[in-house]
Amino acid sequence: MMAPENAGAVQPNTAALREFRLEIEEFNVEYARVLDEFDLVRWAEDFFTEDAFYRVTGRENFEAGLPVGLIYCEGKPMLKDRAFAVLETTTFAPRYLLHMNSNARVTQVGADEAIHAQSNYMVLETLVEDKTRIFQAGRYLDTFVRQDGRLLLKKRDCVYDSLIIPNSMIFPV
Amino acid sequence: MMAPENAGAVQPNTAALREFRLEIEEFNVEYARVLDEFDLVRWAEDFFTEDAFYRVTGRENFEAGLPVGLIYCEGKPMLKDRAFAVLETTTFAPRYLLHMNSNARVTQVGADEAIHAQSNYMVLETLVEDKTRIFQAGRYLDTFVRQDGRLLLKKRDCVYDSLIIPNSMIFPV
Amino acid sequence: MMAPENAGAVQPNTAALREFRLEIEEFNVEYARVLDEFDLVRWAEDFFTEDAFYRVTGRENFEAGLPVGLIYCEGKPMLKDRAFAVLETTTFAPRYLLHMNSNARVTQVGADEAIHAQSNYMVLETLVEDKTRIFQAGRYLDTFVRQDGRLLLKKRDCVYDSLIIPNSMIFPV
Repeated sequence: MMAPENAGAVQPNTAALREFRLEIEEFNVEYARVLDEFDLVRWAEDFFTEDAFYRVTGRENFEAGLPVGLIYCEGKPMLKDRAFAVLETTTFAPRYLLHMNSNARVTQVGADEAIHAQSNYMVLETLVEDKTRIFQAGRYLDTFVRQDGRLLLKKRDCVYDSLIIPNSMIFPV
Repeated sequence: MMAPENAGAVQPNTAALREFRLEIEEFNVEYARVLDEFDLVRWAEDFFTEDAFYRVTGRENFEAGLPVGLIYCEGKPMLKDRAFAVLETTTFAPRYLLHMNSNARVTQVGADEAIHAQSNYMVLETLVEDKTRIFQAGRYLDTFVRQDGRLLLKKRDCVYDSLIIPNSMIFPV
Repeated sequence: MMAPENAGAVQPNTAALREFRLEIEEFNVEYARVLDEFDLVRWAEDFFTEDAFYRVTGRENFEAGLPVGLIYCEGKPMLKDRAFAVLETTTFAPRYLLHMNSNARVTQVGADEAIHAQSNYMVLETLVEDKTRIFQAGRYLDTFVRQDGRLLLKKRDCVYDSLIIPNSMIFPV
């Protein structure tokens, strides 16, 4: 499970892999910051290709090959719909979120120059009058492509370990 | 809130930004290690400019523009005073601290070559006979300058998300 | 305690230290992934020298100079024994593990080209029907050597802060 995708792979040299790794780290830091600031409009607009696939799903479902996810978006319009839906939700209790990103690795660079990568994420949550706790922890399984010099997500599967998710799970990670 | 400071900014090329990012990561690793070893004398001595500003404050206060903080130091003498005060505190129960630093980003390089940067931190705390918990999580908002080839903090705002802080909050992060 | 080992040290220039740091980060990411996938056979096979020393021990024991550890392996055969023992344990409740690695630093490069390094780790654990919690947090104290172009661990001391360890402590980190 979570095996690297090998069809048509062109494995570049290590120096190139490191460059990709460092670039993906920087991408993830910006991505996390925008989410931590609840700027969901920018999240949907700035980090994905037009036809991007985005999903948040539990590890058990993912490893069973089930397509369903707690969040499931095909294409930017669905990402934007999701962003507006969250922003208009009135049941969203005030809280702070803080992403800790780590363990980025490039698994493969495809013949089409798509970059397959993984990394770990942990989102900390702090509600008013409560202590900081782990909201969600898991792994990003990504496919990046380059457009106009910038990396964009063509696919991001957020596979979370956390089996019990607080009520705010609707929030993208 | 937490907007980049843009007055007189000179945005260097990406390669230079990455160099700064990697150097700041290395700075933060040393900084964290010294704190994890409770070496507060070195903390006050080795990481700041003479006129450095250091503050630990809650996100709510910070975003409201309130100057007050749980720790507030202007200049190295105040940092050293703080270090000695903590070391002499008898109510400081034995514990281990462990910093996890992540998500470093350079937001701007000023015309004066000051480097504005942010990063996320999480401090884990383990008290005797208790399990490891999150002591404090938040964001460093920094201004670095270079002196004699080394980076030093001219300003570090530690803006924590954690609203409920254990009794040892007096400890710098 | 945890002082750098200085005998016969050759301190290379900063650029070389950064290369080592980035390479060690990449090593740790692969190491962590293999453990998170419970692939203990590969863990024992791929990351250590034949004569490697591997230990998991509490910080208190470590700082007191006590040799004992919760896990103690001298040489690859003992690592493999440990791997098989864990895999055959029937009392190992189903769970997910997720490593967050951070704060890697090279402390010294020896005259024998051994690389002494440290880093912080946190292992998150999620049991079925339970929320994600901190399983273990601590510091790797490592000695790496290069064989056939690849870094391998000649020594890894996993010094954990966590004083209360869940029942699965037998699992390597």
